[in-house]
Amino acid sequence: MERLFYPKVVAVIGASPQEGKVGNTIMKNLRNFSGTVYAVNPKYREILGFPCYPSVLKIPENVDLAIIVVPAKLVPKAVEECGRKDVEGAVVISAGFKEAGIEGAKLERELVEVAERYGVKLVGPNCLGMINTEIAMNATFSRVAPEKGRIAFLSQSGAFILAVLEWSKRNGVGFSKVVSLGNKAMLDESDFLEYLAKDDSTDVILIYMEGVEDGRKFMRVAKSVARRKPVVVMKAGKSQSGAKAASSHTGSLAGSYEAYRAAFRQSGVIEASSVEELFDFALLLLKYRKAGNLAILTNSGGPGVMAADACDQFGVPLANFNFETIRKLKEFLPAESNFYNPVDILGDASAERFSRSLQILSEDENVDIVLTILTPTAQMDFLKAAESVVGKNAVCCFMGGESVDESERILRSSGIPNFFDPVRAVRAISVLGRYSKISAKERVKEDLDVSVEREKAEEIIEKLLESGGRVVGAEGLPVLEAYGIEVAPYGIARNVDEARDIAESIGYPVVLKVVSPDVVHKSDVGGVKLNVGENDLEKAFFEILSNVEGRMPKARIEGVLVQKMVDGGKELIVGMKRDPQFGPMIMFGMGGVYVEVLKDVSFRIAPITRREAHEMVREVKAYRILRGLRGEKPADIDAIADLLLRVSKLSLDHPEVLEMDLNPVKVFESGYAVVDFRMVLGEEV
Amino acid sequence: MERLFYPKVVAVIGASPQEGKVGNTIMKNLRNFSGTVYAVNPKYREILGFPCYPSVLKIPENVDLAIIVVPAKLVPKAVEECGRKDVEGAVVISAGFKEAGIEGAKLERELVEVAERYGVKLVGPNCLGMINTEIAMNATFSRVAPEKGRIAFLSQSGAFILAVLEWSKRNGVGFSKVVSLGNKAMLDESDFLEYLAKDDSTDVILIYMEGVEDGRKFMRVAKSVARRKPVVVMKAGKSQSGAKAASSHTGSLAGSYEAYRAAFRQSGVIEASSVEELFDFALLLLKYRKAGNLAILTNSGGPGVMAADACDQFGVPLANFNFETIRKLKEFLPAESNFYNPVDILGDASAERFSRSLQILSEDENVDIVLTILTPTAQMDFLKAAESVVGKNAVCCFMGGESVDESERILRSSGIPNFFDPVRAVRAISVLGRYSKISAKERVKEDLDVSVEREKAEEIIEKLLESGGRVVGAEGLPVLEAYGIEVAPYGIARNVDEARDIAESIGYPVVLKVVSPDVVHKSDVGGVKLNVGENDLEKAFFEILSNVEGRMPKARIEGVLVQKMVDGGKELIVGMKRDPQFGPMIMFGMGGVYVEVLKDVSFRIAPITRREAHEMVREVKAYRILRGLRGEKPADIDAIADLLLRVSKLSLDHPEVLEMDLNPVKVFESGYAVVDFRMVLGEEV
Repeated sequence: MERLFYPKVVAVIGASPQEGKVGNTIMKNLRNFSGTVYAVNPKYREILGFPCYPSVLKIPENVDLAIIVVPAKLVPKAVEECGRKDVEGAVVISAGFKEAGIEGAKLERELVEVAERYGVKLVGPNCLGMINTEIAMNATFSRVAPEKGRIAFLSQSGAFILAVLEWSKRNGVGFSKVVSLGNKAMLDESDFLEYLAKDDSTDVILIYMEGVEDGRKFMRVAKSVARRKPVVVMKAGKSQSGAKAASSHTGSLAGSYEAYRAAFRQSGVIEASSVEELFDFALLLLKYRKAGNLAILTNSGGPGVMAADACDQFGVPLANFNFETIRKLKEFLPAESNFYNPVDILGDASAERFSRSLQILSEDENVDIVLTILTPTAQMDFLKAAESVVGKNAVCCFMGGESVDESERILRSSGIPNFFDPVRAVRAISVLGRYSKISAKERVKEDLDVSVEREKAEEIIEKLLESGGRVVGAEGLPVLEAYGIEVAPYGIARNVDEARDIAESIGYPVVLKVVSPDVVHKSDVGGVKLNVGENDLEKAFFEILSNVEGRMPKARIEGVLVQKMVDGGKELIVGMKRDPQFGPMIMFGMGGVYVEVLKDVSFRIAPITRREAHEMVREVKAYRILRGLRGEKPADIDAIADLLLRVSKLSLDHPEVLEMDLNPVKVFESGYAVVDFRMVLGEEV
Repeated sequence: MERLFYPKVVAVIGASPQEGKVGNTIMKNLRNFSGTVYAVNPKYREILGFPCYPSVLKIPENVDLAIIVVPAKLVPKAVEECGRKDVEGAVVISAGFKEAGIEGAKLERELVEVAERYGVKLVGPNCLGMINTEIAMNATFSRVAPEKGRIAFLSQSGAFILAVLEWSKRNGVGFSKVVSLGNKAMLDESDFLEYLAKDDSTDVILIYMEGVEDGRKFMRVAKSVARRKPVVVMKAGKSQSGAKAASSHTGSLAGSYEAYRAAFRQSGVIEASSVEELFDFALLLLKYRKAGNLAILTNSGGPGVMAADACDQFGVPLANFNFETIRKLKEFLPAESNFYNPVDILGDASAERFSRSLQILSEDENVDIVLTILTPTAQMDFLKAAESVVGKNAVCCFMGGESVDESERILRSSGIPNFFDPVRAVRAISVLGRYSKISAKERVKEDLDVSVEREKAEEIIEKLLESGGRVVGAEGLPVLEAYGIEVAPYGIARNVDEARDIAESIGYPVVLKVVSPDVVHKSDVGGVKLNVGENDLEKAFFEILSNVEGRMPKARIEGVLVQKMVDGGKELIVGMKRDPQFGPMIMFGMGGVYVEVLKDVSFRIAPITRREAHEMVREVKAYRILRGLRGEKPADIDAIADLLLRVSKLSLDHPEVLEMDLNPVKVFESGYAVVDFRMVLGEEV
């Protein structure tokens, strides 16, 4: 990829001398490029002073990168010529491919075939281009070029890049690399992410994402990158209305947002919920990596209180000062000051009082970052204040308009973020806590292994599929058993004698449930009898049969499940569904009301580690119930984690299992038992 | 108050010719004032060209308003002279009162006494002053004067006003009135709110609040104002850390944030969670009042999707267009456009394509507001686009930097808000939905009345207090009964014969519970027996006595509660605690885990209406459980509402009841029964 980002020679195929044309704007933008630029256009010999050739093949030296802006139907040929010329990469700006319908999609496939055949790396098509500020390469049609900086920005929306570049210019934010991903026919966010991880001029990676095609590739790459460099994503298409709009826009199939959230979380990607947050987070992460305890220093009580409130809201810890710190502050601050966190040095504070206080707070080893909040009082000299902030671990709220401008430039030039709103400042700071958890995660050999009988499960699933099963209930329990998952003792009886034999071997009382591929809500048709004793067995057995036959005369009854009656314990639900982008997604929650009413569940993409399985359990709000309320003994969390690992493994090993519901699972002080089960079999989507 | 806000003659007591002094800055700020200004200072005959007198008494004409900046100890005398001169109001800027400690608090009381004696209306002390842009009166020491506008701003922090004024100047936001509330020794936010409701030059009222002293007064006033004009509050001191900082700052006792939230909600006050939100909301509410369906119109898919996501997140409904609208759009938009909401007119859209689309969307009666999102493409002429937006019901996201500046001025001059971030724009728009619900609330004669036996309850409470009861359990049940609250049938037995008589009259099985002022956790000491039948009564009775005597030998045992065993039903908790600012606050939740683990409760300040009682029930997440899951019959919500009304009335009628816990209350398909009860009696705080 190095030649793609650091080309020595660039050719613009479809360059134009005509004002307003994309092929013209790009030529203009490349005027500052530190390398050599050639135009390609059969109609001209020279464009904007650059030599022009009828074909890339005619260029008298090696070409590293081609920017292609010719009409869509001419693009495959242009790329083929690039291939023959051994051009490393082609940025296809031209539109008219997948996003334009069936014909375009065909053309795009053709384009990819050509590129693959010749080993040309393809960016786009249907994109804005790419930028590398280090070599002054602006190979886009943006009217604005960004400043140099240490943020890399990948975006699935070209127009959004236009907006961001203008905004960043205004706000003094710089970039190392900018890539417009376009249709991602060949190179996608994961490929660039992998490259940027090793790019010395990039410290923070931002992504605007509508969807990824290969979710598992993204997770694999992101997981290794995020530990070293922060990756912040703004995901669009989260809601149903948003997802609809996204897919009509890029033709990319948006996976469910829950899957994205789980994937981001598992791979250490930080999600921003708005454009402002995306860049606020970036500015913080450019300057600081370590999270920690915040000291608030203010000349105005009100905004100090706002910040303290926000610390509570966003989980930013407030530092507890050393006695020594407080003693030093008391030496020179007015008696009415507040010496504790937030430190209020009062409205009549001078810049000198401010800088002495800041110095003292910075020296306290319990303080990691000082949030300095200053309002524009007559006594405050913002310039002096800014100078004293430089070199400190600080984030600023210099709250004002004109009087702050000059000092803001000073802060900006040393990378210290400045906000007007204390709440926004604290929200931005909160990203440091999130990132430090990600970077601190040791790369342990992760414990995924559980011993299972994979072939046995395979055979059972095949048989179930052969017998036409799609929605499978109790008949599928052996699959769980093959994976070492504990199932409440059971048997399937085809007649009352078998039922009695089973009941006797597992012990009374038992539960009877009809086994039928046609009956989904077994209780609703009288297909379930709880707490059946020895004397009631026969009656219960026949009642079930007659109930189901009476209410669903066409249902195929395959037998009656005789299951040990499981008393006590707490109800859990464990489930799996396959996400088109990310594959099997495991769900955990407490059963009944917690899932149905409170939606109190956690998700992870398989495979999960034992640590992640424990996280899933701790993450639900009802976790405290599992831990045991009022002196109650805790439930067996280790056993639940083990169950989740086995479900994860089963999902990965057997793509024919499309969905699973272990519901309920009863968990006890020791162990658990699956009480009811349902899975959907079929071809993997 | 009219003379306070619209004085013809203003005197500055403590005026000074000396640069940098507050008394000098104020004189300078008053140079543009449309009325007459006098300086008061015994040392000068003239200051900055204004005539100067040794005392306000010497001014040769009537004075409407005095601005006082003399040292604190001289302020009472200055106010007295104002009183003798029949000055309507005095803005005391001087600090050194309640905020400065005990001596200052004494001085403040003296100040209030003088002001009350002479009928002088007092603003402050310890404030920044006040502003009325309509008469160009800037009676503050802010270096920046705001533009004229239709926002009134009340702030408990003077320094925050300084910051806001500078910021507003930069962002073209204007104000009608600005009041720095200071210590609120006499006039508080409620008084100003009442005035501003009738002020023709004010459309939106913003308050920065740390705490209110008289919460009930605030609610009463806010309730009547908010229906007519939006009131938006930024509350600081929400968290424990924040509240600590707030009280050390202003000396005002912060009530619990839950009480504020309930109060804001009940009185129709909109809460903003950050400074940005405060002003974003204000800008939206200045321009629009009606909430409704949003159309998103964009030249860039990505930001359009972000906005659609945000609509989902912030509950802003997306409009469904008429067929006619889509037909008209299809007539001229490129085929690849998206014709549904969000409408994407593509990156090559011109201002003309944009304005035609906007016109069509505006004509659709299903569309109330159009959010127009434009990125800075080469084809987009922002100026023309802005011109076409003027006159439409629109909110803009013109996303860019320099290229947007000029068009932003056009939008601003017609009051159309413009944001860079689509998510922030939608969040701002969401305030319209909130406000339209507030303004739409009909002022019905509210149903508060429940018939109760107030005197009877009074007597019981008195007796309980006389017998030294502070924490009262079953002995307090008659108080509930006097208020028509249903209690599970019970009696208190002093011996086993009485227990038997009671049990026989209410019917077996029963529950036995020890009655003792010293035993709080009755179960923990073996003081409770459930499901006691006729044969077990005696044994259970004596077991309780011996258990309690064994484990808490010093506990005074006053008897044993014999209560009907209540089977089935759903557990609720109803509670009351008194907030120092707002008075009795009623709590509702589902019992057990829902309260303890999930904190799923709702609060209201008493008195509550029947409608509010229903709201309280519907507000908890567990409401769906009460409504009945899976075909289950719903619980008797009307009965719960009635219970809440009675608890509300009881709380207001009997200030000696400091706290109550009705926990659990069992609710059935019809009716409910209080099963356990605890109240704390004492002097009202």
